[in-house]
Amino acid sequence: MVAQVEYSTELDTLNARHSQHTPGNQVFTYTFDTLPLQRGGQFGPVTLAYETWGALNAEGDNAVLITHALTGNTHAHDAGCPDDPKGGWWNPFIGPGRLFDTERYFVICSNVLGGCAGSTGPASLNPATGRPYGMDFPLITMRDIVRAQHALIEHLGVSELAMVAGGSIGGQQALEWAVTYPELVRKVVVIAATAALTAQAIAFNEVQRQAIMVDPLWQGGNYEPDQGPRAGLAIARMLAMITYQSEEAMELRFARKPAWNTTTPSPSGSPDLGRRFDVESYLYHQGDILTRRFDANSYLYLSRAMDSYDVSEGYPSLDAALRRIRSKALFVGIRSDFLFPAAYIRELAEKVCALGGDATYVEIDSPHGHDAFLKEWAQMAAALQRIVAEER
Amino acid sequence: MVAQVEYSTELDTLNARHSQHTPGNQVFTYTFDTLPLQRGGQFGPVTLAYETWGALNAEGDNAVLITHALTGNTHAHDAGCPDDPKGGWWNPFIGPGRLFDTERYFVICSNVLGGCAGSTGPASLNPATGRPYGMDFPLITMRDIVRAQHALIEHLGVSELAMVAGGSIGGQQALEWAVTYPELVRKVVVIAATAALTAQAIAFNEVQRQAIMVDPLWQGGNYEPDQGPRAGLAIARMLAMITYQSEEAMELRFARKPAWNTTTPSPSGSPDLGRRFDVESYLYHQGDILTRRFDANSYLYLSRAMDSYDVSEGYPSLDAALRRIRSKALFVGIRSDFLFPAAYIRELAEKVCALGGDATYVEIDSPHGHDAFLKEWAQMAAALQRIVAEER
Repeated sequence: MVAQVEYSTELDTLNARHSQHTPGNQVFTYTFDTLPLQRGGQFGPVTLAYETWGALNAEGDNAVLITHALTGNTHAHDAGCPDDPKGGWWNPFIGPGRLFDTERYFVICSNVLGGCAGSTGPASLNPATGRPYGMDFPLITMRDIVRAQHALIEHLGVSELAMVAGGSIGGQQALEWAVTYPELVRKVVVIAATAALTAQAIAFNEVQRQAIMVDPLWQGGNYEPDQGPRAGLAIARMLAMITYQSEEAMELRFARKPAWNTTTPSPSGSPDLGRRFDVESYLYHQGDILTRRFDANSYLYLSRAMDSYDVSEGYPSLDAALRRIRSKALFVGIRSDFLFPAAYIRELAEKVCALGGDATYVEIDSPHGHDAFLKEWAQMAAALQRIVAEER
Repeated sequence: MVAQVEYSTELDTLNARHSQHTPGNQVFTYTFDTLPLQRGGQFGPVTLAYETWGALNAEGDNAVLITHALTGNTHAHDAGCPDDPKGGWWNPFIGPGRLFDTERYFVICSNVLGGCAGSTGPASLNPATGRPYGMDFPLITMRDIVRAQHALIEHLGVSELAMVAGGSIGGQQALEWAVTYPELVRKVVVIAATAALTAQAIAFNEVQRQAIMVDPLWQGGNYEPDQGPRAGLAIARMLAMITYQSEEAMELRFARKPAWNTTTPSPSGSPDLGRRFDVESYLYHQGDILTRRFDANSYLYLSRAMDSYDVSEGYPSLDAALRRIRSKALFVGIRSDFLFPAAYIRELAEKVCALGGDATYVEIDSPHGHDAFLKEWAQMAAALQRIVAEER
């Protein structure tokens, strides 16, 4: 079963909600029957939503796969507003003459398996029941996400990926691509991601999941669409937003300023305990907007895939896994990132080199924490420029 | 109205629950009529629970006031098991010949106003209604907490405090003592506390409060005793425990080890998403035990007092506040503390010196994060030894 359609009904709704898409942008879907899962069993049918920019060459070897972060989507670039940094999550990097030059590359960004922006995830209808999968969705892994992407690029006629690049769990996907499909990935850019999460990062994720699952509206995951655990998801997002920034960045931006907006309700809806701080108002807002565009069960599944990711899984050792990499690799750490500490990313790059791989490490000197890969356009472009330009 | 009783009924229950107290330890209470509040108005009656070790001298000037952290209590020391580091929260530091030598000092530790270990707090009965105060409890500040302690030491006949010492919000109290009652505090030890919380720390606290208030059992704060928002409080504690440690410490202890205990239910009670990590099991346990000994509304009020604390409040400037300090001051930072970053504590000590005060800064070189002041006995004793021994 192979299908490619423009704008599914589901995505129409999604796009209308986001108002991000212009008529010049097309979201496609590709559906295939079954995906073997890393933890055992098969799952299907699987639909992946994706967008592309540029054109695939005759050899099928000029594709760049961009992999998105936890709550990301296909919309890395907006051809309708290419100069708005918020028009797509990597908008400034994609387009004619840009870092990912669409006159040279065929740039692909697909929504991950387990996501809720057009791809099959817990909110999708289970054909066996006619109801959303909810917690009957299988426990997917980063490898499953990458294998689904592999099915997509095969479908698109890609013979070899010129590059896979992404940050955060997008970086985990990029690393997994280089290890799982070494012969298909010419270059890989792993940004703000490590071989496996730290105990602290797992702990932060688990607090977020507990906040979702304790919300009575979660109902064991069997909520109706639009009647999910909004408060729990908003609290999870509040915490996530702290971990995506840094003490330094939050101090620069908020310090102890009072809120200018005291009308946004808190997730719990309870009144302020005295003066509201600006940082609180900001977090309420961030929590609120995520609940308008993201499914709580997707959040559970994807953050768990992030925790459980260990690039060495299924290999005799970490070295054995990393020795598989054939790609020219760039690892990018962020000085102030505490979710994926730069020191670990540097070590990973050094290990790949020590094992005979071709890896470079660059550190972004930013106070913006983990999120710097979505903010520090100039430093990021400078870091990626060389590997993008070079042919090996 | 002045009352001093041994073991109130409330404390009997508390102690029976904790099984920490031996017949050799006595918890006293002192009740006074009214306390003027920093944010306006009066509050009362106020009962403070406290324990003491050693004896007050004839001059009334050998008292050491030990101030506890967020979920702490009066039980800094246990005379019945002086050699068990967990017998009291600063057990190894107190006793004959120890850092706080009870043959020389009269050591006092009182439960804070707003707490739930014998002192008046949101769980106490409001005499006007016969029901717990709940959210009718006033928004208290660190200054209110310290003023209540001042009433207690006056009642005990203390003419001058040889020292006030505490960590975390206990450190905020110590600093506030030195600024509010400069003529009464000979020496002050401010550990792992700053002049005011960072935006990041406020943010972490607010996520915790939201987790409590979103729990339907919170009921706007009007829950029956023992029917409170246990799941919400457990989630709050899980997050707090992350902020009390460090990436480094959690990696040393947990890394990605699987849980050896998968029977402790998570706060939400929902099943594990795949393999449970050891760090998750640990956090569930920590969350669970806090709910057995702490009141959720107390948690809200005290963590808010922590956020709102700014030593400069009510003075023309921070300099003006700090210039009031007459005590010999020791500031202790912890290298890996991200809740109260060491750099800010060092700056605070330097500022006090620059303003003509007598301040020293010592940094604890520990991976244990904020909690190091409750774990690094040798380093802490070494840091405090000199100021405790010196007479100015």
